[in-house]
Amino acid sequence: MRIVSADTGGAVLDGAYEPIGLIATAAVLIEKPFKTATMSIVKYADPFNYDLSGREAIKDEVFLAIKLAKKVKPDVIHLDSSLGGIELRKLDDPTIDALRISDRGKAIWHELSKDLQPLAKRFWEDTGIEILAIGKDSVAVRIAEIYAGIYSAKWAIEYAREEGSIRIGLPRYMKVEIHESRIYGESLDPREGGLYGEIESNNEGIGWELYPNPVARTFMVLEVWRE
Amino acid sequence: MRIVSADTGGAVLDGAYEPIGLIATAAVLIEKPFKTATMSIVKYADPFNYDLSGREAIKDEVFLAIKLAKKVKPDVIHLDSSLGGIELRKLDDPTIDALRISDRGKAIWHELSKDLQPLAKRFWEDTGIEILAIGKDSVAVRIAEIYAGIYSAKWAIEYAREEGSIRIGLPRYMKVEIHESRIYGESLDPREGGLYGEIESNNEGIGWELYPNPVARTFMVLEVWRE
Amino acid sequence: MRIVSADTGGAVLDGAYEPIGLIATAAVLIEKPFKTATMSIVKYADPFNYDLSGREAIKDEVFLAIKLAKKVKPDVIHLDSSLGGIELRKLDDPTIDALRISDRGKAIWHELSKDLQPLAKRFWEDTGIEILAIGKDSVAVRIAEIYAGIYSAKWAIEYAREEGSIRIGLPRYMKVEIHESRIYGESLDPREGGLYGEIESNNEGIGWELYPNPVARTFMVLEVWRE
Repeated sequence: MRIVSADTGGAVLDGAYEPIGLIATAAVLIEKPFKTATMSIVKYADPFNYDLSGREAIKDEVFLAIKLAKKVKPDVIHLDSSLGGIELRKLDDPTIDALRISDRGKAIWHELSKDLQPLAKRFWEDTGIEILAIGKDSVAVRIAEIYAGIYSAKWAIEYAREEGSIRIGLPRYMKVEIHESRIYGESLDPREGGLYGEIESNNEGIGWELYPNPVARTFMVLEVWRE
Repeated sequence: MRIVSADTGGAVLDGAYEPIGLIATAAVLIEKPFKTATMSIVKYADPFNYDLSGREAIKDEVFLAIKLAKKVKPDVIHLDSSLGGIELRKLDDPTIDALRISDRGKAIWHELSKDLQPLAKRFWEDTGIEILAIGKDSVAVRIAEIYAGIYSAKWAIEYAREEGSIRIGLPRYMKVEIHESRIYGESLDPREGGLYGEIESNNEGIGWELYPNPVARTFMVLEVWRE
Repeated sequence: MRIVSADTGGAVLDGAYEPIGLIATAAVLIEKPFKTATMSIVKYADPFNYDLSGREAIKDEVFLAIKLAKKVKPDVIHLDSSLGGIELRKLDDPTIDALRISDRGKAIWHELSKDLQPLAKRFWEDTGIEILAIGKDSVAVRIAEIYAGIYSAKWAIEYAREEGSIRIGLPRYMKVEIHESRIYGESLDPREGGLYGEIESNNEGIGWELYPNPVARTFMVLEVWRE
């Protein structure tokens, strides 16, 4: 089974360790033994001008997952939306109303599905690949989240090189290590069975520190500065 | 405090990593310091012809726990049903209706209690041993779950010896290691304080691989084959 | 950001491993990198004569946090009550009614706020320091909880020195190590990013054992005895 997934994460933090805006959407290809990605791509957002409602993230994720899927032809696409594994192409208005989610969630999906449902339907007709709203049960979604954190660290390094320093929040219970020519990240939850990721990055002349976010237990803060 | 518990787990998986049927019910005796079993017994099901509704598992667990309890005379039996620690012998229809569980859970227990309540009452009258529906709060239940996973690995090895290979899903966040003459299993959740188990098994000529289930985060897959 | 927090934990257990009463309220000062306390104080309760409803604990926590805050002048105080981070000084009756908590929680807070709301208001007017009901999202609250466990171990050692032995339950998923002249404690949840604490204590002539509480999964039991 070859799975493509996408997720958005990593946030620029303000002085009170609260998120200002999200940084990176990562799409990944996952293959057996499902512990890391065999391919990954990224799309950066502008965290200083970000819609935190969740709409922007989901659209970015669908577009980026389809972009990678066109290239690597996976068996299925997993989306970070916990709608019980339903196929995105079947998400019309009556189906959304029947979902067991909050009224706010339904309102968001009624809006999102206008664009995304026809897109998913066309993609399925062309390729036979389903896009499933499986959410937190998917290991592929979690690995995409870890890569979103790793790419956010890369973004932070490039930002610090120009602006001097920055403080970002990583996705839930994960850490990163910044080495000279690569960034390594891994889940801090051993129940997940050893999920990790790695990308190349020139990190010379960069200092960094990782520590718990004091107002968001199980989330880590990464500080990066030009040395 | 000496506790007997039983739990059912381990599942044969289909090609999409979804469970077809459960493999093993394990009953265990737990004594201080409550990290592993001092005795264990198993009853195998037929995973290719299994009632996944949960009824079969609970009955198997009660029967197997009583079988072990008759031998080792524990202080109490813990059952993997989160009904607030209520005594099984008191579970009559009005009591079930008053439980804070789903309507589906009530329907299942109305049916189950017809057999199990008189059985528990008689066992208590004979031995003074209570059967408590304590569920997930019990370390004994969790150790029984880990043994169900270990015995499922043993079943998989015997199956692979005859049929060539098989892929099973282990109970939640646990791993197994297949050594030459034993199978070791342990919890992947360090918050549980180091729970583990071990059984003897002739594993010569067997190859194996353990990896995360891509569609069930925090659950591991075990593949076993004849070499 | 410098945070003061307080939490109550550690319980004397009966023969069935159920709590009789709580032992220690700890207040801590937390500073970057937010993994341990730079200062801590304790107030011991009488666990053999304890109000387990939660009212006593919250009052003790507010008083002890304010006591430490007067000394160390933090930026903010975090309270172990998950009320969405609301300021304690704003917790009047209409605000409590509008909270998304259980009716029992509302009844408790209507009673508690009579004393605590004016106290928080006066403290804020004097110092500008807010007391936030942030609860489980706060790393400071979790570190206070770990220190409550460490101080409970110290209490148990002193008790065992006089009475021979005792068995206590630690706060959720944490362990302690009793060394000759200090007690070390740490979180068993790696997702929290390495939270720990340490206090001095004369532990000569004391034996101890740590193991899972069989009826409270993810909670550890500490037994201490005079050798």
